[in-house]
Amino acid sequence: MNITERSEVRRLPKRGSHDEAIIHRILDAGFIAHIGFCVDGQPFVIPTLYGRSENALFVHGSAASRMLRQLDKGIPACVTVTIVDGLVLARSAFHHSMNYRSVVAFGTARKIEDAAKKTEALRVVSEHLIAGRWDDVREPNEKELKGTTVLEFTIEEASAKVRTGPPVDDEEDYGLPVWAGVLPLMMTPGEVVPDEQLHPEAELAGYVRDYGKRL
Amino acid sequence: MNITERSEVRRLPKRGSHDEAIIHRILDAGFIAHIGFCVDGQPFVIPTLYGRSENALFVHGSAASRMLRQLDKGIPACVTVTIVDGLVLARSAFHHSMNYRSVVAFGTARKIEDAAKKTEALRVVSEHLIAGRWDDVREPNEKELKGTTVLEFTIEEASAKVRTGPPVDDEEDYGLPVWAGVLPLMMTPGEVVPDEQLHPEAELAGYVRDYGKRL
Repeated sequence: MNITERSEVRRLPKRGSHDEAIIHRILDAGFIAHIGFCVDGQPFVIPTLYGRSENALFVHGSAASRMLRQLDKGIPACVTVTIVDGLVLARSAFHHSMNYRSVVAFGTARKIEDAAKKTEALRVVSEHLIAGRWDDVREPNEKELKGTTVLEFTIEEASAKVRTGPPVDDEEDYGLPVWAGVLPLMMTPGEVVPDEQLHPEAELAGYVRDYGKRL
Repeated sequence: MNITERSEVRRLPKRGSHDEAIIHRILDAGFIAHIGFCVDGQPFVIPTLYGRSENALFVHGSAASRMLRQLDKGIPACVTVTIVDGLVLARSAFHHSMNYRSVVAFGTARKIEDAAKKTEALRVVSEHLIAGRWDDVREPNEKELKGTTVLEFTIEEASAKVRTGPPVDDEEDYGLPVWAGVLPLMMTPGEVVPDEQLHPEAELAGYVRDYGKRL
């Protein structure tokens, strides 16, 4: 990955990385990207689903979306993905922290015009969210494709930040009788809620039932 | 809440709201804020912990943080909080969606200089993350306070977006034998990992043990 001033990890560099494999792994484990862009100096940060293929991220939305129309101008964008892994409870307020994995990626986005490429990008987003689903559902028709804008965001530079492990307290605070440790947090699926108008022959697929194993 | 062009909900306005109570509730339920700001047209989106008091959000970090130093200039900022509630599985690829709650807030941030106010803001952040913890741990000392920058971000305008409920398919797709419904997703605590150097008299507090009830 390229590194310039904008992507250089300056705070706590021991937690930072520019390793492409680490960056891809975090992007593949995340759910939601927060996309930032500027209009006349005003920042906008919008949450969105995404998918990844090599160094490209795909995001989609209505053709009327303000965000997508702005981004398609080729303005600089920043895509950030954050995964929370736990609360780090130290003996002092100061050393409390979070275990997390995050990627901050810089680049620009462009609309995908070609219908086949667009459908493939939508498949990548769908499979990222829930692998196996695409083959079971009705594919987008021409009208739906026309009403959908799909952007390809090319990662020019990115950095990852990861914190793992126990709290690190000041030496003298280890003598305090305060419980300390990590409270792991993770995204967990609950019980599925079948649609009320379910077709009598519709069966719950394994990729839905076993979704938690991916997380 | 004020509404101008930047905070107006234009896409799917039925999912949008400018109701202060709804906005506050989502901010209080979230964990991580993604803060956006622009430097020479380049957007940056950085994940951070936060706390809320009325229409102020508090964020903190090292006094050396590039983000906090930029924001303290009083430049426009955007703070976005997103909570994922579930995958919405429709019969067509097109109607797949996500159940979620999000807030996009616009405003500017300023450093808190007064030590007592700063400590109080840190308490608010701590209690937001894990209520009850602050009283059990060693409070920040003078050196730690000096090394910490705390910003107060004043929300000038904000909008909330919420999607709940089942998939909405095209009429003709209800005849497809495809399973459809909602797969709820939620942040769930795992088993605590006590620190290896735990003081023999340190006891696990109820606010850690019962953390999941808050989520």
